[in-house]
Amino acid sequence: MMKKVLKFGGTSVGTVERIQHVAKIIKKEYDLGNEIIVVVSAMAGQTNNLIKLSQSIADDFNKRELDVLLSSGEQVTCALLTGALMKINIKAQSWLNWQIPILTEGEHANSRIVNMNVTKINNYVKKGVAVVPGFQGISKDGEITTIGRGGSDASAVVFAKLLNADSCEIYTDVDGVFSTDPNKIPVAKKIDRISYEEMLELSSVGAKVMQSSAVQTAMIYDIPLQVRSTFTDRKGTKIFDQQNIDYSKSVTGVAYSKDDAKITLIGVEDKPGIAANIFEPLNKAQINVDMVIQNVSSDQKTTDISFTIKRDDLLKTKKILSDNKKIEYKNITHNDRVAKVSIVGAGMVSTPGITYKMFRALADVDINILAISTSEIKLSVIIDEEETLNAVKKLHTIFELD
Amino acid sequence: MMKKVLKFGGTSVGTVERIQHVAKIIKKEYDLGNEIIVVVSAMAGQTNNLIKLSQSIADDFNKRELDVLLSSGEQVTCALLTGALMKINIKAQSWLNWQIPILTEGEHANSRIVNMNVTKINNYVKKGVAVVPGFQGISKDGEITTIGRGGSDASAVVFAKLLNADSCEIYTDVDGVFSTDPNKIPVAKKIDRISYEEMLELSSVGAKVMQSSAVQTAMIYDIPLQVRSTFTDRKGTKIFDQQNIDYSKSVTGVAYSKDDAKITLIGVEDKPGIAANIFEPLNKAQINVDMVIQNVSSDQKTTDISFTIKRDDLLKTKKILSDNKKIEYKNITHNDRVAKVSIVGAGMVSTPGITYKMFRALADVDINILAISTSEIKLSVIIDEEETLNAVKKLHTIFELD
Repeated sequence: MMKKVLKFGGTSVGTVERIQHVAKIIKKEYDLGNEIIVVVSAMAGQTNNLIKLSQSIADDFNKRELDVLLSSGEQVTCALLTGALMKINIKAQSWLNWQIPILTEGEHANSRIVNMNVTKINNYVKKGVAVVPGFQGISKDGEITTIGRGGSDASAVVFAKLLNADSCEIYTDVDGVFSTDPNKIPVAKKIDRISYEEMLELSSVGAKVMQSSAVQTAMIYDIPLQVRSTFTDRKGTKIFDQQNIDYSKSVTGVAYSKDDAKITLIGVEDKPGIAANIFEPLNKAQINVDMVIQNVSSDQKTTDISFTIKRDDLLKTKKILSDNKKIEYKNITHNDRVAKVSIVGAGMVSTPGITYKMFRALADVDINILAISTSEIKLSVIIDEEETLNAVKKLHTIFELD
Repeated sequence: MMKKVLKFGGTSVGTVERIQHVAKIIKKEYDLGNEIIVVVSAMAGQTNNLIKLSQSIADDFNKRELDVLLSSGEQVTCALLTGALMKINIKAQSWLNWQIPILTEGEHANSRIVNMNVTKINNYVKKGVAVVPGFQGISKDGEITTIGRGGSDASAVVFAKLLNADSCEIYTDVDGVFSTDPNKIPVAKKIDRISYEEMLELSSVGAKVMQSSAVQTAMIYDIPLQVRSTFTDRKGTKIFDQQNIDYSKSVTGVAYSKDDAKITLIGVEDKPGIAANIFEPLNKAQINVDMVIQNVSSDQKTTDISFTIKRDDLLKTKKILSDNKKIEYKNITHNDRVAKVSIVGAGMVSTPGITYKMFRALADVDINILAISTSEIKLSVIIDEEETLNAVKKLHTIFELD
């Protein structure tokens, strides 16, 4: 007997038929003698519909009331799924945020779950399936709060921790985490076991698989996750702490991001604090800076600093840099047609020659590397955007992922 | 300054544009310095949609979960209307059933509001508009409960009583209560002032105006009601205690019901308890018996008993009567094409000749009266169904209601 948190996303409960199918999946787990806590999202499209309604009333629709509005979506799914479970003779009960309660801290639309009354749920799961809404809770003042879009994954992970569950299974509309984007690279392979860190690094190709913040939370609390499809019987991907994974391959997957732009500041005065002076105003303007590479300068007195940002932020970033009186540089250049390609693998650090192998592979297909950045489990290069899929295919093959 | 409960039905809040229009109506009342509690229904169609979803899962969808499901509808309207009020700079806040709380007793799907914490709302309405869901509450065990279809009217009336409000205004999609059905009889006139009792008797022609049970509750607690249109500026109908109404006309309106059937038991043994023996089994079978008329029998030993029921119940009723061993009668006849036409007026009791005037009017247009029943404020006749509109028109004219 295990205690399991099963989470079903919006597409998994998008229609009555799918809700009935989900009830059957739960029945299978329940009939094995497991204690089951089910976490549900709103039916697919419902949250967007409610947001549209609110926006047609006011662009800056009050956040407290938006939380009241949106939280109704998961309430609907909870009731329908519970009814569907009872229809197939599974004892079940819906539990709303205030009935448990699920306690949150932080602002409306961006709170986080900090606690829940586990006694009621722990008692109930001895008798039946507890169906709980994701994405929401109540503040200590008794206000409805939500934890941001896609937050039902995070809800499931935190519930698994607070309830001391043996596992947390995220049912979604894909088969699991893939070695690269299966829609673009047909030879992409489903990964059976992966570490939290690798999963996070692969998020650019698997962003739709699971919310990054939920993976981070699972990593912090060491909650084993399993991502699997609601619609197939396939095994899915297990996500563990790195130590629990046996690495037969040094590289687990190939990630990429498009719509990037690279900016280079040439001849920046090389003195302490200069990087802070450059990036602080960008941070304030909520511009997300990804890779930063500082090259040694030829004259030893100045340096060249390159970094990548989302292409949409390019104009804004250039304006902030030119308005910035705290930094001096000779010239500023940009390239708005770049992509980042990364190989990811927790086994990389113990495998010599990975770096060389990657550069050689790209050179073999005549791809020019514009910048390089490395971490313990990831090696990223910036290349011409047009070469993205070529590079991904080549690396996927070279590192035996096909 | 007055304390007002304003209730808006499903069609009044059926779209974002209508919700914004409702916000303007509330603003007008609020700007006059009134303390405002707003009670809302679910957006038109939403409750039916949710019921359909539940029924496609199970015909006997669990009632506890159905209440969880349906109560989401008013939650959505509360949030949207509150956002719309804030958008036009009215301080406002939504209050959910458990946040107040609104306490109910009774079964799921059929509970009644017995209390609410008035302190929070009374404090809040000094600062802003409180927006509260109709149709729902929570039980003493903290379960969500609903009070039956159309229950938002009843919610508004009970809130008005518990909060000691000065008035309760029901905003709907008609201009008020009419002297007869304005869709069928174009000369029907809006009634400016009417008593609770008359309103109840006229419910057959104004059923869509307001829920009968809500009128009864208002009558019991003597809460003055006002029914008016969300979509026009017209004055609506005020509903009071009978004593507060000055009657210039003896007859206030003409009501009718179709789809009736009349059953006559001929030659029933005339002894004490016979009526109870006839109607007890019908009551048990939830057959609603409307008019009952007992004629004196010619032989002084037996009697003829006629009564009307809904046409749909005819076969069931005849079967129950023939299976009933406790009653003896010579023959049973029925007429399944009858209608009931009634004149209603609190001034009737003090006006002589009303009865004669009604019979004469019907005779003038060759309408045969099949049965008669009288009460203090109502005089009903059963006639051939085909003559219904003729009879209503004639009576409407004769009693100067055109």
